[in-house]
Amino acid sequence: MDLHEVLHNTADWLTKDGPSSDIVLSSRIRVARNLERMSFTSVASEKSFKDTAKLIREGIEKTKSLSSMILVSVSKISEVDQNVLVERHLISRDLIEIKGERLIVVNPSQTISLMVNEEDHIRLQGIKEGFQLKELWKVVDEIDTELERVLEFAFSVKYGYLTACPTNTGTGMRASVMMHLPALVLTKQINKVIEAVVKLGLTVRGLHGEGTEATGDFFQISNQITLGHSEADILDNIERIVKQVIEHEQSARKILMQETKVQIEDRIWRAYGLLKHSRIMTSEEAINLMSAVRLGIGLGHIHDIDRKVLSVLMILTKPGHIQFQEGREMNSYERDVKRASLIRNLFDQAQLN
Amino acid sequence: MDLHEVLHNTADWLTKDGPSSDIVLSSRIRVARNLERMSFTSVASEKSFKDTAKLIREGIEKTKSLSSMILVSVSKISEVDQNVLVERHLISRDLIEIKGERLIVVNPSQTISLMVNEEDHIRLQGIKEGFQLKELWKVVDEIDTELERVLEFAFSVKYGYLTACPTNTGTGMRASVMMHLPALVLTKQINKVIEAVVKLGLTVRGLHGEGTEATGDFFQISNQITLGHSEADILDNIERIVKQVIEHEQSARKILMQETKVQIEDRIWRAYGLLKHSRIMTSEEAINLMSAVRLGIGLGHIHDIDRKVLSVLMILTKPGHIQFQEGREMNSYERDVKRASLIRNLFDQAQLN
Repeated sequence: MDLHEVLHNTADWLTKDGPSSDIVLSSRIRVARNLERMSFTSVASEKSFKDTAKLIREGIEKTKSLSSMILVSVSKISEVDQNVLVERHLISRDLIEIKGERLIVVNPSQTISLMVNEEDHIRLQGIKEGFQLKELWKVVDEIDTELERVLEFAFSVKYGYLTACPTNTGTGMRASVMMHLPALVLTKQINKVIEAVVKLGLTVRGLHGEGTEATGDFFQISNQITLGHSEADILDNIERIVKQVIEHEQSARKILMQETKVQIEDRIWRAYGLLKHSRIMTSEEAINLMSAVRLGIGLGHIHDIDRKVLSVLMILTKPGHIQFQEGREMNSYERDVKRASLIRNLFDQAQLN
Repeated sequence: MDLHEVLHNTADWLTKDGPSSDIVLSSRIRVARNLERMSFTSVASEKSFKDTAKLIREGIEKTKSLSSMILVSVSKISEVDQNVLVERHLISRDLIEIKGERLIVVNPSQTISLMVNEEDHIRLQGIKEGFQLKELWKVVDEIDTELERVLEFAFSVKYGYLTACPTNTGTGMRASVMMHLPALVLTKQINKVIEAVVKLGLTVRGLHGEGTEATGDFFQISNQITLGHSEADILDNIERIVKQVIEHEQSARKILMQETKVQIEDRIWRAYGLLKHSRIMTSEEAINLMSAVRLGIGLGHIHDIDRKVLSVLMILTKPGHIQFQEGREMNSYERDVKRASLIRNLFDQAQLN
């Protein structure tokens, strides 16, 4: 199976419900590692890029879990497929833009990915459905440990793993959860909650990662600190805070249902009606409407659409995915028409099942 | 059958398709008549109101077609029922507000109504589905002729029928059609068309008659002139002009479907989705969405909703009708919730059939 074929399948974590799936869509953890004695990519020569990639490739081949995965050079991947990889959070936009030899490793179920020669030599990432950072950490840590047996990582006894950007130094670990917080948004509590989360040392971002606005009530919460704490401590801290955010969202949903029941139902069902019938839809509108329908499923109003269908649609309706499915580049109007048709078809299919 | 019971039935003309029903909802004709020697209502004493009403009542009882109809004094009708009569165009708002003895005559199928002591002593009205002014005129003229045999109408050889307001003097006839012109609105040709129609001596009004804005692309076109022409000439003139407006609307629809097919489909289906699923809906939004769905039926996109269902809904969702069906006064929020539920139910029913 090659990468292009793999991308035609739905990622494993999108097809399963996980812990607290009604509020937490997914958990992600990545670790940043660099090879001893090789230049960081920001300053590396073309040759150094190649040498680093070669060393890591050899290391991967010696690693039981990674050697069976799909390994491709970024230069061999079509632009359409590259965009799909970014939209699935399997690689970063940066990896595409960097010049020099870069590799991608992905497992067929798309729960593990590894970037070679992004900001750091190695960025290893795992992703799981729902809220399960610790289970995910076991998986990522195991692969990382395997890799460390065959590759010499830049490591300082004082600082821990050394990274291109000092904000990653230490554990090199960034753990994040993608949360759906519509009730906190509707009850206007979201800013207070975000402020509190930030004060507790975490970072809050939009759906599309660093520097993006939160869209459709989706928020990514991750650790800020990588240095001076063990991985277990960092994960404990995130878990504790995310649990509190979940509780806040749950009580906000109760308040909504008590105080503005019909207004919320109206919002939910209008979104449902528009998704089911529109002929033209921008990705921004789609994400906002899907957010409302997702809330409707959570509140028990909508039964004929599974939450997982929405999670899949959230990915499939992104611009890169629309073009991937159509097999060609499309302008924004063409994409909006295709997006609407895709949503209608998946809603109809979901209701037949 | 008393008036209240009659109002629980749908008016006959709403349950039938008529000529050019896709663009002309209904044809209406009313004639204004006054009794010889009795004061106009604007200057009449309480006694004069009573005397006039008594004379007309006696006249009606001698008239074959009217005597079998329901005759009620306005003072005996509940406010809720009064509003329903107004919203069904069976009586005017003015009739309710005038002080003094006033009567209403309505046939069970709600196609004929007669107001006693409105602006004029007698306002006789007929209403038919679609575009059929001449067929309707036969019906109204026959009743008017019957009445004239038993009542002495104020008539001048020079001017014709005398009326309280000089704009009605002559034939005393006002003929109107309710048109649905969404394509002329969407292609921004409507103002030009209205200007032309006005120049040709007709009046263009909104859905709710004199002095109202056009809502939901519905326009009422009627004759301005009542004096100096025969009824046949006036009707010929309206017919000719309305036919041209119909043709303009039809070619605007063709242009829409050629040039902005997907945008129009999107507009139509979004309206459909919102009507089918909303939980709160103002009458203004309802009328606008129903206008779009009506266009969708006309263009052959929507098959599971009959145009007549929409015509009925346009009446049933008016504020007075909502309260009539619920049997109590309701505030605007309660009405908006009830309206949305009514529309959902009728859409669901229509689709089961």
